[in-house]
Amino acid sequence: MEFVQSVLRGDRLALSRLLSCVENDVPEGRLALDALFPYTGKAHLIGVTGAPGTGKSSLVNQLALQIRKKEKRVAIVAVDPSSPFTGGAVLGDRVRMRDLAGDSGVFIRSMASRGSLGGLAAATAAVTQVFDAAGFEVILIETVGAGQSEVDIARLAHTTIVVEAPGLGDDIQAIKAGILEIADILVINKADRPGVETTERSLRTMLELAHPVRKVFRHHGQMMELNDGVVPQEGLWIPPVQRTVATDGRGVPELLESIERHVAHLRANGDWMRRERARLQAEFDLLLQEALVSRFLAKIPPSKVEGMLQLIQERRISPREAVYQLLEN
Amino acid sequence: MEFVQSVLRGDRLALSRLLSCVENDVPEGRLALDALFPYTGKAHLIGVTGAPGTGKSSLVNQLALQIRKKEKRVAIVAVDPSSPFTGGAVLGDRVRMRDLAGDSGVFIRSMASRGSLGGLAAATAAVTQVFDAAGFEVILIETVGAGQSEVDIARLAHTTIVVEAPGLGDDIQAIKAGILEIADILVINKADRPGVETTERSLRTMLELAHPVRKVFRHHGQMMELNDGVVPQEGLWIPPVQRTVATDGRGVPELLESIERHVAHLRANGDWMRRERARLQAEFDLLLQEALVSRFLAKIPPSKVEGMLQLIQERRISPREAVYQLLEN
Repeated sequence: MEFVQSVLRGDRLALSRLLSCVENDVPEGRLALDALFPYTGKAHLIGVTGAPGTGKSSLVNQLALQIRKKEKRVAIVAVDPSSPFTGGAVLGDRVRMRDLAGDSGVFIRSMASRGSLGGLAAATAAVTQVFDAAGFEVILIETVGAGQSEVDIARLAHTTIVVEAPGLGDDIQAIKAGILEIADILVINKADRPGVETTERSLRTMLELAHPVRKVFRHHGQMMELNDGVVPQEGLWIPPVQRTVATDGRGVPELLESIERHVAHLRANGDWMRRERARLQAEFDLLLQEALVSRFLAKIPPSKVEGMLQLIQERRISPREAVYQLLEN
Repeated sequence: MEFVQSVLRGDRLALSRLLSCVENDVPEGRLALDALFPYTGKAHLIGVTGAPGTGKSSLVNQLALQIRKKEKRVAIVAVDPSSPFTGGAVLGDRVRMRDLAGDSGVFIRSMASRGSLGGLAAATAAVTQVFDAAGFEVILIETVGAGQSEVDIARLAHTTIVVEAPGLGDDIQAIKAGILEIADILVINKADRPGVETTERSLRTMLELAHPVRKVFRHHGQMMELNDGVVPQEGLWIPPVQRTVATDGRGVPELLESIERHVAHLRANGDWMRRERARLQAEFDLLLQEALVSRFLAKIPPSKVEGMLQLIQERRISPREAVYQLLEN
């Protein structure tokens, strides 16, 4: 496929076209993904997540600039749930463009949420693969939200960065607790604002309570000092807490150092391979699911499924029994 | 099943036990769901969603109190992503308990996010069915977050309420645009705070741009006045914007009136049945998927799948090709 060769050669126009094919899941895109697959597995995938108002986009922007200083090519995948049905996310792009425009070592792609279950996760995984094959060494995957989408990122990324900011609403507290469990690095952005001490204190308290750290404690049978980025004997990573001011870039070089320490840690203890494997397995599971359903539905007349749905709606058969009966035939 | 009979009789302890079975997806829970299915389809499902800091939980609390005044039984399902991996959500419960404790017409259930794709949506749907069968006439489903989880609620609920508040962060703007598309009713909570006018103005502007309303405009070929809750000739619903102060209950009776108007609208134009059907179809699709995958995997030796995953990890075969080869055998 000439198309694929162009992408591998670094043709930005071909890359852009391919990303659209892949995002829209057209046959051409699927074939290209297969052809590109042998070239994947080299990029470092970094997930950046956090609640609205934390300044994630600016931070991702600054991170990209910082990574560019090291002569690495960077792709940004902005997963923006701003429009679950029709697509969107132009706002953030315009802000980014000011600083990163014209740099051929940077490629930015915004993705809108899909209505279908798992659709966005699958599309993000596919787009990430294309960037990986196209030779982008670092891929920053940014999402807004709280919940499932973060879990999906955690599955996709090698390094997950959770961004906080001082003085956000009251619900934020509740969200932190769970998100901490997927964080490899915690960032307090807007660290020039009042309340940064309180935010850091509460983050550290929650960090002590968070699952992975508790495990360390239990193993030692005694309390352990929480030193940033220190890797305990068991090879567990304790998420460091970094302060940044994304608007002027303060703290971003230090954040990049933490990221590099995390990569070294993952490679040293085998977690890099394990995360890689988990990610590929998730993709395999999803594709298997899709294939089984479409093959099954191709074998039975649509009227039969329709009839079952009618019986379900009339409450004469439960959805589970309907599935059972269809499979028995 | 005695268990199921107890739930149908209104035994709260049996209900609580059954909810746990269903949430954990144990065989006993699945059988009970089948047995209860004929008794479902009566409840009005109301989704309440919005960004952190909007005061959703207090609003849901107030709504429940208001609905109780009409002698209807209310269940609250708080889908809390605060802990994607270990469960949580006790915080919100304690707040609620103060006002609603001791009222046997109210049942509150908190659910934590599941790590598995679609897991939480499926569990929430199941819990909702149990409440429906147990005779709760209104079920309030509350979620935090922005993105996929909202789309899943929209699928589950008859009425979706999106909660905003004045003076939240800058990213909020971006989220609104998409969430508006799933909103049946918009609420500006904390309406006693400064900035409420600005919030309402920007909501109304976005509402005018939102998809369903644009369709109305196009159909008429001219601009239409946006009157709250007015149902245009085509039977389309224009989401009203309501102001509330959940801390003291202001605006909540009016919100309930909007909800009741929405139900009447759904029933009149056939959307109630259509939403019901879409919801049951989604559940059927999910169960079919699960059943097909587990049956398929039961037929092939695990070593074969393992081998494929190994080849994928070595980049010698793409996930899609691996699935294809497994299915061809």
